This record gives sequence, C-alpha cells and structure tokens, in this order.
Amino acid sequence: MEVSIIAIGDELLIGQVTDTNSGWIARHLSPLGWSVKSVRVIGDDSEEIFRAIDAAFAQTDIVLTTGGLGPTKDDITKPTLCRYFGGELVHSPEVEQNVLEVLAKRHLTINALTAAQAMVPSSCRVIQNRVGTAPIMWFEKEGKVLVAMPGVPFETEQMMESEVIPQLVKRFVVNEHIEHRTFVVIDYMESRLAMRLEDFERQIPPYIHLAYLPKPGIIRLRLSGQHRDAALLCAEMDRLSELLRDTLGSSIVASEDKPIAAIVGDMLRGRGLSLSTAESCTGGNVAHAITAIAGSSDYFNGSVVAYSNTVKQEVLGVPADVLAEHGAVSEHTVRAMAEGVARLMHTQCAIATSGVAGPGGGTPEKPVGTVWVAVKCGGRMEAECYHLPGTRDRVIDRATTNVLCKLLKLLRDCAVE
Amino acid sequence: MEVSIIAIGDELLIGQVTDTNSGWIARHLSPLGWSVKSVRVIGDDSEEIFRAIDAAFAQTDIVLTTGGLGPTKDDITKPTLCRYFGGELVHSPEVEQNVLEVLAKRHLTINALTAAQAMVPSSCRVIQNRVGTAPIMWFEKEGKVLVAMPGVPFETEQMMESEVIPQLVKRFVVNEHIEHRTFVVIDYMESRLAMRLEDFERQIPPYIHLAYLPKPGIIRLRLSGQHRDAALLCAEMDRLSELLRDTLGSSIVASEDKPIAAIVGDMLRGRGLSLSTAESCTGGNVAHAITAIAGSSDYFNGSVVAYSNTVKQEVLGVPADVLAEHGAVSEHTVRAMAEGVARLMHTQCAIATSGVAGPGGGTPEKPVGTVWVAVKCGGRMEAECYHLPGTRDRVIDRATTNVLCKLLKLLRDCAVE
Repeated sequence: MEVSIIAIGDELLIGQVTDTNSGWIARHLSPLGWSVKSVRVIGDDSEEIFRAIDAAFAQTDIVLTTGGLGPTKDDITKPTLCRYFGGELVHSPEVEQNVLEVLAKRHLTINALTAAQAMVPSSCRVIQNRVGTAPIMWFEKEGKVLVAMPGVPFETEQMMESEVIPQLVKRFVVNEHIEHRTFVVIDYMESRLAMRLEDFERQIPPYIHLAYLPKPGIIRLRLSGQHRDAALLCAEMDRLSELLRDTLGSSIVASEDKPIAAIVGDMLRGRGLSLSTAESCTGGNVAHAITAIAGSSDYFNGSVVAYSNTVKQEVLGVPADVLAEHGAVSEHTVRAMAEGVARLMHTQCAIATSGVAGPGGGTPEKPVGTVWVAVKCGGRMEAECYHLPGTRDRVIDRATTNVLCKLLKLLRDCAVE
Repeated sequence: MEVSIIAIGDELLIGQVTDTNSGWIARHLSPLGWSVKSVRVIGDDSEEIFRAIDAAFAQTDIVLTTGGLGPTKDDITKPTLCRYFGGELVHSPEVEQNVLEVLAKRHLTINALTAAQAMVPSSCRVIQNRVGTAPIMWFEKEGKVLVAMPGVPFETEQMMESEVIPQLVKRFVVNEHIEHRTFVVIDYMESRLAMRLEDFERQIPPYIHLAYLPKPGIIRLRLSGQHRDAALLCAEMDRLSELLRDTLGSSIVASEDKPIAAIVGDMLRGRGLSLSTAESCTGGNVAHAITAIAGSSDYFNGSVVAYSNTVKQEVLGVPADVLAEHGAVSEHTVRAMAEGVARLMHTQCAIATSGVAGPGGGTPEKPVGTVWVAVKCGGRMEAECYHLPGTRDRVIDRATTNVLCKLLKLLRDCAVE
C-alpha cells in the first residue's frame, strides 16, 4: 500500500519546528511493505488543507494528517475536515471524558480551550488519544481513508503504534511478502562503494532493490525485496547478503540498521570491555550518543566534560606543563585526557576530544574546526587531528561521529589481529 | 514573496533521513518577509518530480528543490529538469574544475561517478558549489525561477546564504516592511497562556499576527508584522511588546528566540556565576545542551557523567551509605551529586540528574521515567522528581529540558528576590 502524509502547521512552514512525524511513520510502515508516496507540509490554511487532501487522495487510498489540532485558535483543521467529508462539529462526551482523564494524570483541570477538543466532526469515527487531548479522527470516503492525528510526535507515535497502524492493516490487506536487510559499512565513500559493488549489483534480480543511505562516517546499504513467494524471496536475500559480506569483508560492521554508538557498544559488551570519555569541545555529546543506547550502562562507566583547563588538570590529571607547552587542543593533551579518564573511571577503553568548535576561539595555527581526538583500547592508543568545516553544531556532531568511528575501527582491528 | 520547496530523495520518504533543509530555508527567508507556501517531499521518481514542479509553479513564482543530485545511479533529477525546462545534459568544464578543487581540499581524486557531476542541463545557469561536488542549477521559465540544490544540509545552507538568497533578492523585489519579535515565556501551558492573553490579542491590528510556538517547558510568542510604513509598524510593534511585558512580567525570560540553555547562560554570565553538571540518566545531554551555545566556556566549567555508582562515589563523593540507603535514583543522591560536582569543579551553580531512562531498569517503586533532579545556585538548592512518559530518547530529552527550566526559574527567582 502507498500512503500520503500531510503535515499541517504554520510552525512547520516557518521552520520553528521540524516535521519528524513523517519519517517516523515511514519507518514504521516499511516493515508492512507499505511506503510513503509523498509528504506535503502546509500551513494552517483551510484552502491549502482542502486542496492537499484532494491531491493526496488522487495519488493514494490512505492519507495520514498530522498537526493542526492544538487548542489555540489558529487551528482550522477540524472545520476543514467537516467541509471535505461532510457533517458538522458535534460535542463528544467520550472525548471530553478522555480529555479530563489525560489532564487529571498531569494534575491539570479542563479550561475553555481544552474543552474545545471535545468538538469533533460528525462524519468521523474517533480513536481516543490516550496520551494527549486532541482526538484522532478516522474518515472514510469512496473506499479511501484519512486519519487525522495530532502534531506532537510523542502522541502520534504512541497512537500510530497502538491503534492507527493495526486498524489500517485490518482495513487494507496485502498479498506480497516483504523483506529488508540493512548493512552498516565503514571505510568507503559513497561513490567508491558504488564502484566496488558494480558486479554485485548486476546479480540483483528485479524484485530486489539496493539503496545507498550515506551518513557521516558510514554508509548503510539496504536490500529491499518484494515477492509473492516468501521462501524464494528469503533464499535470494540470503544469497545476496552472503555475497555482500564476501565482497566487503570487515568493512561491514553491522548487519542491521543501528547507530555507530550501538555497534561500538555491541563490540565492547561482546568482549567484556568498559569505556569512559573525556570531552572538551564535544561537551558531553559523545557521552550522550553512547548513553542514548539502551543498556549502555553494561559497558559505559561515565565521562568527564572538561571545559576548563583547571578541570583537565585537577580531575583528569593532564600535567600543567603539557597544557602550557602544547595547549589544550593538542595530541599530547587528548592522549593525557584519555589516559586520565580511563584511570579515573577504571576502564580499558577511552575516548578523548579537544578542539575549537567555534565560532570564536580560533587562531591561525588552530583555526575553528580543529579537533584533536584520541581513542584507547587496552594498551593501544591512536590520536588524530580533524579539520572540520561548518558551524559549531556541525563541528560538535562530526567530531562525535568521527571519534566513535575511530574507536569502532580500533576495536575492529584489535579483534581482527 | 512566497516560495515552494520540493525535497527530493527516497531516503526522505523511507524515513532514514529527516528533511531539515526546508526549515532552515524558511527561517532564513523569513527576515526578508518571504514565506514558504508548501513543502513537498517526494522520492527519486521522474514522474513525481515533474508533477511536483508543475504543482509548485502553479502556487508560487519561486521553487527551490533540495536533493536528488548525489553521485550514485538512483538519482534522476537532472534528466527530469532537462525534460521540464528543455535542453540536454552537457559537460561543463567549469563544474568539473570546481569538483576537482573541492575533492583536492578533501585529499580525494575524481572518479567516474563524481565526474558525472560535471554534466548539467544546457537550459540552466550554474552556481558553483564551493563546498560540495553537486552543482547548483538556476532555471527560468515564464518569469518563474527554480533553483536546484544538493540535499546535504551543510552545502545547501552555505550556498543559500552566500549565493542563492542574494541572487533571488536581486531578481524579485518587494515593497513591504517586515518585523518579527519573539518572546520566550515560562510558567504557562499553551491554553492557559492563550486565556491570559485574550485582552492583549484584542489590541493587535490586522497587519500584525501573534503565533504561539510551544516547546517542552517553554512557549515562544512571535509577533509578525508587515506594512508599507516602516515607522508605523515599528511603533506598533514597540507598543505591543511593552504591553506583552506588562502582562506577563517575569514569565518572559527572553525577548528573542533562543534555546533555554542560552537564556540560562546569559543569566549566569550577567551575574558572574559558573556552572557544572553531574549527570546520570541524562548521560551528558545536559552538558551537551549547555555547550552547544557559543561562548559557554565563559560560565560552564564541565560535567561528570556518573553512569556507575563507583563514579558517583569516587569522583563526585556521593557517600556510599546514601547510595545504599536511598538508591542512585533519589533526592539524597542528586543533592549529593550537585554538591559534589560544584565542589569538584569550583562552581556556584550546579545541576544533577539521576533516573531510569528505560526501557530496562524500572521497578515498581521507581518505574521507567522516574527522574530525580537537583539545581543549585549558591546556598539555595531545589530538588524535584519527574515522572516522564515515553521512550528512552524522550525521557532523556525531557529531563534535560526540565532541569534547565528549573535552573532558569531558580536563577530568575534568586534575581527577583
């Protein structure tokens, strides 16, 4: 099945909020073999909403809308849905009851604006929103379905998962079998990987598609197949996966889609190693990436964000003469930071970063974007200097990704040897 | 002027990549008084691209496309642009020269796939992409303009700022004056704030619009005005800003749009205070939010991410009996962590967090989402327990936002007293 998404809200069009719902929906429809045909992002404008629904139904039988249902007065989605699907806004005692229950959980009472949430088009079937006050509304017209959901990502995700997806699956049945296999690849640029895989790609049958999904430092390869014969599909996916592993060897670091920090975590856990980080310019972002992975407390002991030289000396034990002679942004300092935090937190592995994230603080010798990192695994330590382009955010993000990739490679190489 | 955006790429529709370009473009066109009319997100599909361009030109005279220009073979945007605007793909020596220069900066050599970047439609004017290999292409048809840009956010941002926006402004001139004022408000839920501002809203003339832009913990209020008479507009915006300040008092914590961490930073800097954080469940995310702000080294000394109890004891000095008696997720522990890190890093202010981010680790007494935080400012310390819903990511994010808001309120209240 193909699905259209309409994301509604002035806040999306002025760039104050980024639409993350559409991506979430796409990722969660994909295992069903369903795909998103297009996403339209429009403002809180009745004519625009009306036209977008028309255009979306012209393309797909399922339309999902997110947003435009908040309690403040600039929302005009519900009257527009009434106009499109017929009926009028009526008071729903069930929705009001649900609003009261949701507010009670938050220790709040109902007011005039939240009470307006209980008005719903008579032409829809309500799915109660158990995690928010805006009701989910299911409309049908000429065999096609539109489901209107709130814009708050948490609410949309919870309700899509528990109610909307199951009800859509019940309503629209499909016969084809679907399989996806994702591989995380390091060591390659996208164009060089494509050249390396030319022979491999010639072996792919028409019902299987290979996608390159590059991210900084890694490329994910995704094989997607669709066929009536599940056994045949599975065998062919197995054959291609094997061939891909033969072709790329240890450059494949994971056979499912997962963040670099999770792959690093799996390697550490598998070998009973522990990790700590000492961060200057990345300011805690490396620790955040590591601890974003559930179960990271199995191998991650902690981090020292050493934003001042005093903290580098007193907490991490970086010698004063190293800082004085080489500066905070130097190979000597990151090596001492990595040793220091490994000692302090009793870990075999460590990461250290120190750099100039900008926009201030650059010098001719060490311009903005200069980042020294060190990674340690047992007795082996490697250091490297990056020159990263872009804004402060980007320097921090890229330094984080790069140093995690660097530790990943060190762990891989230690294992291979 | 109104602008349509078309974001092209299968990776966007399957949810592997989130379209952040559109928001960036909207935020950077807004100061010109230009607005984004709609965003279409579509796959690498020639028919879809063709149709989307047609539909976009039906709405606006300016269309910006991002993505669909990478070096791998599934990209079909350039031939489609040829089909739409006429002409054929021709080799551009200038683009090839630019690709070589960009690759040389990255210490890479050209290969067959990157060489394909030098093929451009004969119907376009090329704007050289100085930060990447995909050329920017400017098309004109019947007085309307389409600019095709790469999908990599860094490249689009750099080239929009330095070339595309200035050239668009030169091409399309506008007569109206534009003003925006943004206020960051705490202490209110959206619906209660809307009720509080009913009188205020009645005073807003038709050429000024008030938008509520809620984020967790804060609500941003944005006044946007558009008028031929710049002096009149400015005077009226001044009057409304003053009235809003009178109405909301110290609940307005900033008179421009900035992150909570930046508002906290301004307060600390203004009063010569320094800050450190001790993080368990937030795993470095609070430090990351603080250090994402340029200049944060003026007031932020550092952080200890204490993911193990050993680190809590040895580095932060949390007494073993406190951990044994009350557990790591407790008021006693976060208070000891805040005191410990303030002592260790010589700061007047401190933040501490300890909780169960999930999905594992919950108990009947302390279920997933239980987060204790403490904030300290000089001799004052406050602790609070949150019960946060949702996934691990969300618990970490909300705990981070909540504790920064809590410190913000403590700093505000200390100043008011």
